[in-house]
Order: sequence, then structure tokens, then C-alpha cells
Amino acid sequence: MAGTAIIGLGNMGQGMARNILKSGIALTGFDLSETARSGLAKAGGKAAASAAEAAQGCDLLLVMVQTPAQAHDVLFGAGGAAAALDPGSTVILCSTVAPSDARALGAALEEAGHMMLDAPVSGGQKGADAGQLTVMASGPDAAFARAEAVLAAVANTVHRLGDAPGMGATYKVVHQLAAGVHIAAAAELLALGAKAGCDPQKLFEIVTTSAGQSWMLEDRGPRMMQADPDCTSSVDIFVKDVGLVLQTGRENGVPLPLTAIAHQMFLAASAMGHGAGDDSLVIRAYEKLTGKPVHES
Amino acid sequence: MAGTAIIGLGNMGQGMARNILKSGIALTGFDLSETARSGLAKAGGKAAASAAEAAQGCDLLLVMVQTPAQAHDVLFGAGGAAAALDPGSTVILCSTVAPSDARALGAALEEAGHMMLDAPVSGGQKGADAGQLTVMASGPDAAFARAEAVLAAVANTVHRLGDAPGMGATYKVVHQLAAGVHIAAAAELLALGAKAGCDPQKLFEIVTTSAGQSWMLEDRGPRMMQADPDCTSSVDIFVKDVGLVLQTGRENGVPLPLTAIAHQMFLAASAMGHGAGDDSLVIRAYEKLTGKPVHES
Repeated sequence: MAGTAIIGLGNMGQGMARNILKSGIALTGFDLSETARSGLAKAGGKAAASAAEAAQGCDLLLVMVQTPAQAHDVLFGAGGAAAALDPGSTVILCSTVAPSDARALGAALEEAGHMMLDAPVSGGQKGADAGQLTVMASGPDAAFARAEAVLAAVANTVHRLGDAPGMGATYKVVHQLAAGVHIAAAAELLALGAKAGCDPQKLFEIVTTSAGQSWMLEDRGPRMMQADPDCTSSVDIFVKDVGLVLQTGRENGVPLPLTAIAHQMFLAASAMGHGAGDDSLVIRAYEKLTGKPVHES
Repeated sequence: MAGTAIIGLGNMGQGMARNILKSGIALTGFDLSETARSGLAKAGGKAAASAAEAAQGCDLLLVMVQTPAQAHDVLFGAGGAAAALDPGSTVILCSTVAPSDARALGAALEEAGHMMLDAPVSGGQKGADAGQLTVMASGPDAAFARAEAVLAAVANTVHRLGDAPGMGATYKVVHQLAAGVHIAAAAELLALGAKAGCDPQKLFEIVTTSAGQSWMLEDRGPRMMQADPDCTSSVDIFVKDVGLVLQTGRENGVPLPLTAIAHQMFLAASAMGHGAGDDSLVIRAYEKLTGKPVHES
């Protein structure tokens, strides 16, 4: 068995790399950021100078970049990994991409003599740090077999969703519909409550223990009540992900009225300058509409 | 201490009445439905022929009708309860009404020499049957004191939200924003998943154990996958409740884009003939848009 590599060491990839190393698997990695590369070296991995260099001598590659264009670039662009991997390698694509993108990348990798596991994850930075992600994966049995130890290191649940790349992405993108709409709904609720005279903290406590509860309200709600929250996943990630939900609806003939509105609210927050801020900052778009900051209520 | 009465023995009121009786409190009750009245008698209560007759000899009255108009009618209409209650009685208004309606009813009852507890509940028929509702209540201390044993019989949590009628309704109505948007989001998600090739049951399992989880998806999702689900709370209740959220937004100068869309989807399901059906049937409006029934996927 040849080596294992990772490309993409951002908020998610960093934690995943640390947990792969902790499980005893040697790991080479690449990221455009110098800081991310030295972080990998500090955690016991080997930092490479390009995607191709990271892939050299490997037959397993985990890709955790942000967009389908980036995934295509690190695999097939200049200095890309696909040509450097051993023949018949397995590529685990963990990025959230549209099902049509996952199918296209899977076909291109097959053409190049490799296998792809379409394996997006849920659980955020917290789940990545704890090695407790949920993986929604589809791909050939042989790819699942080669990826097993790495998946076990980063996730506590692996859903097997068939042998064709595209289904993992489909389940993940449909999941993001709920994730995105619930974040925006949490903001809409806190903005209304604050202006109508509720104490936001009391409102949060009541709703999270009643039928209005959601995982996103519990997780993002406290950050919506802060003046300057830490960023665990950015507004622009949701501009992208909710955009992928709308694209998937369009490709399947499914109108998505709530999703379309949620997308507009994330776009508004991004346009206001919060694109790189925590996704809970979609609350700023609502506060602009109501004239009343939730965190001062 | 004089007697205790209840008006409104529908899906919610029935269970509440049974739990009040079980706690050892004698109870007189009225409902327009003969079946509901005989149900009360069977459970050990005393059925009255009008709201006024139920209130006779009582200084505590729980009102659990559906709309503010009905609440006004059973209290102040012909044969209404307000004039029949002992002077200085406590009225517990459990119906979900707009904050402005709660304030108006509270003022009218004060004028009539009574006190009002603005005390809407969350937890649905299941919570009402189990005596495990959540109460969001505001009103005078003396009203809380008189109502204590009855609230303890129907609820496991009572949030005290100040001494002015209107705040209980405000918290409840803002809570309904999340409840309504989350039901519609669950339907939008299952409709997209079904058409994009997901197994709805598998999708449900993945999303309810990931960041897309919500109480409403967990509770309503299974009924959205049934051809003919039992009704525990109707589509028309949410047409009304989400309408109250929009009214509260309007009265407070708060635009509510997601809520407005959710309202349209409940209206569509009602217009399709599902108004009296379970609120999970908002899925029918989505299925009409996509052409693919979720329960046959």
C-alpha cells in the first residue's frame, strides 16, 4: 500500500489531517497557505510544495478544498495531483459540490485511471476537530475499502449511498437546504423577537426547548447574540452551498421558494462586508432591515 | 376558593382537561361540539350547555379556543363567560393570538373586574395528552398564584414573562416563526430529495442526525412520508399562526421574508383541500410543484 495525501488544509482540512495523523497514518499535504502547510508539519505531517508533490508516491488522496473549480484545479490543473498519483488510486472528494460536478470529477478521474469516492461531510469545524464528522459517500466498493481507515479517523458515521459518484453530493446538498434555511430562520426569529420586546436570551432558551428547536438555532443562536463572534464557517460558504442547493433544484425541476429567500439573505450579509465572517452574521442583514441590533437587546 | 372551568375541548383542550381532572381538580367545561362535551363528562368532568353556564360559580377559567375572535366571543358574546364568573376571577388564555389581541382581551377582562394570564402553550396534542406542555405566560402575580395548580397539571415548564398580558403571546408568536418555517423547510427538503433520487427515509435519517436537524423535521417528517397521515394539528392552524407571525412583524416594523414564503405554502396546501388535514400535508403543495409524490419514492 502506497502513501496517503491531503489537499486543502482550511478550517475543516486541518482538523481532519490531525485526526488522520493521530490514527497512525503517515500523511503528506498541500495548501496554498504557508501557515496551513507549517500547521501540518507541526502536527507530524509532511508539507509539500504543490498538489502534485503531495500526491507523489500515494494511492489515496483526500481533497477538502472549498469549490468544484478548486477541486478540478488541484486534480487536473498545472501541478495537479491526478497525474502524480499511483495508477488506480482512490480520491476521496470531501468538498461540498453540486451532484453534477461530483459526477463530472468522478468521470474525469476514472478516465485518468483512478477511482473517486464522492464523500462530502457534515459536522463543521467542531466535528472535524473531534474526528466526529458524518460522511455521505458514494463510489466503488474498492474505493470504500481503500478509504476505510482514513474515514474512520475523521468520522463517527459513514453513510454508504451506492456505487456512483453524485449520490453523496446529492444527499449533502439536500442536507444543506435545511442547514441554510435554519440558520436564516434563526436570524429572522431573533430579529423579530428583539424588536417585539423579547429578551433574546430568554427567547433562545424557550425556542430551543420547544417545537421550534433546530440544531442550527442551538449552535448559531449564541453567536448571533454576540457583537463580534468567532468564525467557524463563513457567510460566503453558505452563499456557495445554498447556491448549490438552488442549482440542484434547477437541474431536477424543483422550485425551492424558502431556499431562494435564504440565499438572498446570505448574499445580503456578504454584500454588507461579512462574507468572510461567521455565517451567524446573516443576522446583520436582518438587523439592517429592522434597525435594531439583537446583541444590544 | 370557587370552581374551575375550561372552554374549548378540541385536540389540545381535551388532553388538558383530562390532566386537570387527574390532578384532583373538579372541572366544568363547554365546547360547541356535543362529542367534545360528552368526552369531558366521560373523563369525570361536568359538561355545561354554554360558556356562561360553565363559568357559573367559578373563579378560574382556562380558555383553549382556536382564534382571538372565538376567545372574544366565549368571554364577551351572548352567553359569554366574563359576566358569569365570580368577581375578581382569573382567566388563563392558552390560545395562540397576536400580542395586540392578548393585550385587548386582557384590558377588557380587567374592565370586567377580572385578571388575565396571557398563557399560550407549545407541545402540541402529544404534550397536551401527556401533561407536558410548555407555557409562555405573562400576567399579574395574583393570577399566577390562582392558576398555579392548573398550570402544574398541564405543563412541565412554565416560563414567567412579566406582569403584562401581551408578552406571553409575543414569545409564542415568535416561536411559531420557527415552527412554521421548519415544517415548510422539512417539506421543501423531502420534495427536493425525492426528485433528485434520494431515498426519503435515508435522507430523513441523515438530516435528523446532522446539522440540518430540527424538532419539526423529526416530528412531521415521518408523516410527510405517509400517504394518509393522522391529523394532530391542522394546516389551517398554521395558516392562522404563521399569519399571526406576519401580523406581529407588521405591527413591529419587521419584514419576515422566510415567514412570508412559508405562509404561502401553507395557504397553497389549504387551497388544495388539505386545510383540515395534518400540517405535514404542506408537503402536498411541494409535490404539486415537483410532480413527484414523496410517499411513493
